[in-house]
Amino acid sequence: MVVQRALVDAHLQRWMESLPKGTLYEPMAYLLSLPAKRVRPVLTVMGCELFGGHGKDVLDEAVAIELFHNFTLMHDDIMDASPLRRGRPTVHAKWDVNTAILSGDAMLVKAYQLMGANAEVLSIFNRHAIEVCEGQQLDMDFERRDIVSLSDYAAMIRLKTAVLLACALRIGACKAGAPLDDQERISSFGENLGLAFQLRDDLLDAFGDDDRTGKVSGGDLRNGKKTWLLIRGLELEQHLGRNVLMDQLRLPSVQRDAKLMVQALREYGVEREAEIEVARLEGIAFAQLDDLDGPGRSTEDLRILANALRARVS
Amino acid sequence: MVVQRALVDAHLQRWMESLPKGTLYEPMAYLLSLPAKRVRPVLTVMGCELFGGHGKDVLDEAVAIELFHNFTLMHDDIMDASPLRRGRPTVHAKWDVNTAILSGDAMLVKAYQLMGANAEVLSIFNRHAIEVCEGQQLDMDFERRDIVSLSDYAAMIRLKTAVLLACALRIGACKAGAPLDDQERISSFGENLGLAFQLRDDLLDAFGDDDRTGKVSGGDLRNGKKTWLLIRGLELEQHLGRNVLMDQLRLPSVQRDAKLMVQALREYGVEREAEIEVARLEGIAFAQLDDLDGPGRSTEDLRILANALRARVS
Repeated sequence: MVVQRALVDAHLQRWMESLPKGTLYEPMAYLLSLPAKRVRPVLTVMGCELFGGHGKDVLDEAVAIELFHNFTLMHDDIMDASPLRRGRPTVHAKWDVNTAILSGDAMLVKAYQLMGANAEVLSIFNRHAIEVCEGQQLDMDFERRDIVSLSDYAAMIRLKTAVLLACALRIGACKAGAPLDDQERISSFGENLGLAFQLRDDLLDAFGDDDRTGKVSGGDLRNGKKTWLLIRGLELEQHLGRNVLMDQLRLPSVQRDAKLMVQALREYGVEREAEIEVARLEGIAFAQLDDLDGPGRSTEDLRILANALRARVS
Repeated sequence: MVVQRALVDAHLQRWMESLPKGTLYEPMAYLLSLPAKRVRPVLTVMGCELFGGHGKDVLDEAVAIELFHNFTLMHDDIMDASPLRRGRPTVHAKWDVNTAILSGDAMLVKAYQLMGANAEVLSIFNRHAIEVCEGQQLDMDFERRDIVSLSDYAAMIRLKTAVLLACALRIGACKAGAPLDDQERISSFGENLGLAFQLRDDLLDAFGDDDRTGKVSGGDLRNGKKTWLLIRGLELEQHLGRNVLMDQLRLPSVQRDAKLMVQALREYGVEREAEIEVARLEGIAFAQLDDLDGPGRSTEDLRILANALRARVS
């Protein structure tokens, strides 16, 4: 993991140093300079290495994926009106909305420029890039809807978050010449890892230790954000003839009691259910790796990365 | 021209009918349904035919260029806070800013999806797509600057407007297998045609007949928009020791007298200078076509298109 990360960091650094001066490019360099785990480009390198390729031959594609991811962050932050990202001002807060729109656009073009002209790679990338936009659209649509089902929510998270991990891995595997069924397996690993990661993150927000996460517990709940936990909590509450969550949601968000909401989720059994769902998703993910392990081929690096991600949010 | 336009319209129509339902795609179909001349995709088809290719073999690329152009319109309209485009509500006015940001993003991905995986075509497209973003950035930068020189302005218009015409033609030529020097010539035709077109448009805004243009004369001047005419007018005014334009610009825009400003531009000789500049740019453009004409090769369709563009804004 350390080796692949170093390769990615060096390549990204070189790319950033090649940027022209000016208002169009400075926001890209700024956003890319914020602390980040570089999970996606590292996955591209690992996906390539797993199937016998050299990591250094897929660094352009790896950095292209990271640029695409950061383009989505720059524009999502405008749409969510988020003032901060990783404790630093977002691009539209530091510059202005127009700069963040245009610099994001140019970053998407730059991602394509780096992705190259391999037909199979481009086809994978285009398909997943559109899915990520569809996921963000669903997320915005859901905010205006009163009722979102658990399966609607899972479909949204799959598109918005999980498919880009699958895409990163698959592009690496594709460049190494992996057969299609192996590409499907490594994609499925990435997608289920992404779904599990998101649900762990939601769990952490509600039930995590404030000191460890650095966030106030239940922030998502207080904001009425339709996460897996809140959607499932509202379903169960109705079956149980209770109304703690519903009553809280009727209050203005500043008056909501997050502790009470967390307590209700625990009582209804939502925490336990979510933990089981995380384990189920991770089970699917790791089963793909089991299938891919074989003579002369090791998924160990991917397992180490996956476990590091789990540790961060467990 | 009619034939190429019909090919483009039919292909674009098929593409629009293939779009999924939903908030992400409806704004694309809406914007593409507004009346438009389809100059860029028609140029791609003509660029291909000029060098012996079949127009139908370049329709994906032609429509990709039109999608890219419409993506820039969708985002530029947000940045300019424009409520109307061709007399109809802009996407961000009809839906909202977030929808216009995201639908525009997805439209750019769709443009790439249609552009395909030809390395030479992609390289041309990527290079020009970045230039268009750089042009829009310069345009926004200029709004905040007091002094913009005529050469700064020309550089901005070249990037923001003219290079996409060059790109459209060059991609058509490239697909037909045109040698690089011919690609350069047809690019230069497109770029100079674009520069001339923009300057004609500025002239029309200031000196055009209200009844013909459907716009109020001098709208750009009243808004203090830094066009070629205003920049050159301010330069000449200083040399002449006059101050009509400067005095008007110091007033709030609603109090400005556009007629007085137009009159000053005429007196200073700016109208005449701009007409000479248009003729110079068109001279360069048509000289490229002269060079390209030859046995078994006719630039007639391109000349007809260029003249139709001139007639509209003369």
